[in-house]
Amino acid sequence: MARERLYLFDTTLRDGAQTNGVDFTLADKLAIAGMLDELGIDYVEGGYPGANPTDTELFGEKRKLNTTFTAFGMTRRPGRSVSNDPGLAALLDANADAICFVAKSSDYQVKVALGTTEEENLASIRDSVKAAKAKGKEVLLDCEHFFDGYKGNPQYALACAKAAYDEGARWVVLCDTNGGTLPHQVEAIVSAVCKVIPGDHVGIHAHNDTEQAVANSFAAVRGGARQIQGTLNGLGERCGNANLVSIIPTLKLKKEYADQFEIGVSDAALKKLSQISHALDERLNRAPDRHAPYVGDSAFATKAGIHASAIIKDPTTYEHVAPEVVGNKRKVLVSEQAGKSNVLAELERIGLTVDKDDPRIARLLDVVKEREAIGYAYEAADASFDLLARRTLGKVPAYFDVSQFDVNVEQRYNAVGERVTVAMAVVKVKVGNDSLISAAEGNGPVNALDQALRKDLGKYQDYIKGLKLSDFRVRILNSGTEAVTRVLIESEDESGDRWTTVGVSPNIIDASFQALMDSIIYKLVKSGAPA
Amino acid sequence: MARERLYLFDTTLRDGAQTNGVDFTLADKLAIAGMLDELGIDYVEGGYPGANPTDTELFGEKRKLNTTFTAFGMTRRPGRSVSNDPGLAALLDANADAICFVAKSSDYQVKVALGTTEEENLASIRDSVKAAKAKGKEVLLDCEHFFDGYKGNPQYALACAKAAYDEGARWVVLCDTNGGTLPHQVEAIVSAVCKVIPGDHVGIHAHNDTEQAVANSFAAVRGGARQIQGTLNGLGERCGNANLVSIIPTLKLKKEYADQFEIGVSDAALKKLSQISHALDERLNRAPDRHAPYVGDSAFATKAGIHASAIIKDPTTYEHVAPEVVGNKRKVLVSEQAGKSNVLAELERIGLTVDKDDPRIARLLDVVKEREAIGYAYEAADASFDLLARRTLGKVPAYFDVSQFDVNVEQRYNAVGERVTVAMAVVKVKVGNDSLISAAEGNGPVNALDQALRKDLGKYQDYIKGLKLSDFRVRILNSGTEAVTRVLIESEDESGDRWTTVGVSPNIIDASFQALMDSIIYKLVKSGAPA
Repeated sequence: MARERLYLFDTTLRDGAQTNGVDFTLADKLAIAGMLDELGIDYVEGGYPGANPTDTELFGEKRKLNTTFTAFGMTRRPGRSVSNDPGLAALLDANADAICFVAKSSDYQVKVALGTTEEENLASIRDSVKAAKAKGKEVLLDCEHFFDGYKGNPQYALACAKAAYDEGARWVVLCDTNGGTLPHQVEAIVSAVCKVIPGDHVGIHAHNDTEQAVANSFAAVRGGARQIQGTLNGLGERCGNANLVSIIPTLKLKKEYADQFEIGVSDAALKKLSQISHALDERLNRAPDRHAPYVGDSAFATKAGIHASAIIKDPTTYEHVAPEVVGNKRKVLVSEQAGKSNVLAELERIGLTVDKDDPRIARLLDVVKEREAIGYAYEAADASFDLLARRTLGKVPAYFDVSQFDVNVEQRYNAVGERVTVAMAVVKVKVGNDSLISAAEGNGPVNALDQALRKDLGKYQDYIKGLKLSDFRVRILNSGTEAVTRVLIESEDESGDRWTTVGVSPNIIDASFQALMDSIIYKLVKSGAPA
Repeated sequence: MARERLYLFDTTLRDGAQTNGVDFTLADKLAIAGMLDELGIDYVEGGYPGANPTDTELFGEKRKLNTTFTAFGMTRRPGRSVSNDPGLAALLDANADAICFVAKSSDYQVKVALGTTEEENLASIRDSVKAAKAKGKEVLLDCEHFFDGYKGNPQYALACAKAAYDEGARWVVLCDTNGGTLPHQVEAIVSAVCKVIPGDHVGIHAHNDTEQAVANSFAAVRGGARQIQGTLNGLGERCGNANLVSIIPTLKLKKEYADQFEIGVSDAALKKLSQISHALDERLNRAPDRHAPYVGDSAFATKAGIHASAIIKDPTTYEHVAPEVVGNKRKVLVSEQAGKSNVLAELERIGLTVDKDDPRIARLLDVVKEREAIGYAYEAADASFDLLARRTLGKVPAYFDVSQFDVNVEQRYNAVGERVTVAMAVVKVKVGNDSLISAAEGNGPVNALDQALRKDLGKYQDYIKGLKLSDFRVRILNSGTEAVTRVLIESEDESGDRWTTVGVSPNIIDASFQALMDSIIYKLVKSGAPA
């Protein structure tokens, strides 16, 4: 059976730009448009030409995109003619393949927010669509407040959509502007609309205010709509827009949708989805959501022991799709809850082959459990687990020994009367028969200790030259009566590899020292340094 | 019309504990159980007694909770009798009001993962439910892999659920274990189940792997289920469980659900939802999701522009519910007015009366904005905001001055060859004309500094005798190019009052010192100590 075409419309660069904390530069917009094009998105809404300098400039740029690059803007203002509306003129003149107009489709909004008549609003829609068609553009109408409008006055909401469709708009898009409509309501209303306007001219624009933007998008498709609007990673005002990164794999991988619909995203492009999602976060300088469906670092991570043993027998047990098809990876975590199979899987991943009945496996598991009970967190600290496993299997050389360290933080007034805080550390290290003492300053006690520790490690110095501390996280745990400090340190080296180590102690300096030591020793093991 | 009772079951402490990066201590579990109880959750699943030391200890604790405190565990192992299964015995003996058993309900899983027969699995369910009933417990059965099982072999999946129901289980809970089932499938399957088992004995346990856990939960309710399982903030393995923080307000505030169902969460408790959601994140030391539906910092935030002016005319335009009812706030970004009224409200709360046109209000607002931009968090640090406000209004005496401090941490071998870490601090304080020097040891540098600082404050010593540091939280922030450390310190005094102070610096000791100083000065202000 021939599959129906379902279209994807991305508004990351327009509605996504409304996200609290997001400010796209021109370079950002161009790069993101490129990613969306690579992914196979049918329509990319670039912005609102005329509304701000970035967007005006964006539509002045030359493009080499397959996608239908779309400009967003308002229909002509009430009481003006098309030829006498500079905002509309800028929109019509923009270098865009399509124009997406926004118009209110709720009688209440027309009255309260626009202060005009229902008929004038309809005329504005008709005139604007007509003018854009005359310019040779493909036209879309975003029907703002459609669902709330429809609940109050279905005739008027429909009339707005129909006005655009009758004038030749390719799409009328039903917007759940405040995000409050529930999936069963969306499905019912879209079904009713599709009796009047053919579904292959109807789109859905959902927001996540009840955490159901994805479900609302699918509900609309089930009601007959054939275009989904959304954003990468669900960016957008308030709680965000429908997340295309979650919608795309469901359309491609869930049989019911895959059998019925064809979309512009190829299997090869789908494999890039995780990378594209993370690249957007990198650009926005924020940590990717580890728990994001399909693409998150933990989306295919298993912690529970019973689950892990089942997953090794048959991955489909706990995986609804195969991680590789969306460019993600399976992960079996080692933790207090871990079973033997988690540990075995992890040992295999780090390249240690051990027989599954080796008694040292049970011992390692006991050590992990004991140490996690006092605050260590091995699932987050891959490198510390690696070392613990190697030590239990008797394989880590005693490269060097820190026999003593001393860290000092002093706050006082300096010679010109300013209050200053100074941190210094001294470290005494034995490497073979050499006894080395190093001292360093730092912007805090841990930084000073880190500097001193890495200043001189004798014959190992060359191995750790490229080592860098890239993140430092601290948590105070109340395990029983004593408060202890857990420090997680992320390191990276010259090859771009990253690893995390952990330390736990009532004393934050001691905990940091443990994590720093693990990081250095991990680097030496990794580099094959001689004992 | 009488409304039907819909039940909420929270598994934050059990399934939520599977979250990658989450490790609850006993104190965490007790505190979170308290929050859930306060919220009015019907069932709180505490954990898996016998599986790890924390959970075993948890079920040994005395409780004063209204909720039905539930222990989770497996049905008896295949091939064993009830009396010969130590895991089951530990579960039956746990101090719990209810037991939630988990059992596979997919013929494929029974064969592949359990390696037993379909009949033996049914017998295990029956025997386990019977044994728990005999112990006087309320019983639930989590039907693992129910939806995937049902798709392949509906008879067997139903037989598993029915076996538990027929033996007197209060609830059979249908689990979408790998999170891959779509809402319309959930609704259809739950409807079919509710023809065999009355819906007021059927629950739903959904996961977020297609970003539809919330929608799946509602789909099940529409299919007839009357219990929803979920977690706070959607914690849980992989992409998380259904998010009760999003589900509860929709049930309470959306007319269709509110008219049909009654839940255990009162209107007053609903007002605490934002606070409870944020408190959980604080405890996990992670930043709350700004875009979280209902409770996120940006959930009711509008960026300046057409939306903002419409929202001032009529908030319902872009707000599907009123922010106050879930304890959240409207935010119009880049709006002086919003900030000013917040500050005024906060000043009134702490008992400082200032005219709203007083120019010092604008100055205070500027200082707050500047300091928050570099990492201070006054929303979390009530006492530091209080002092900042009093200082801007010129009302905090200079009780004493710390002219110098010195903190030292040393690690070395002691006389008997053990490795020891010693932390010491020296503090020089001027109180009036007296210059006082105190030194103290501590289990870490901050503790030593705290001890030394409070050892001798001259005439103020009596005021701070009952002061105690009760919590200490650290986060590393990347503000611009420099990483800075933010320290939040919670203190309490002899009257049981608690307050939080904040310090920010590249140096953790300096940041801690700021927060400690604020805490002491706040206590002196609060106690009316003379200048």
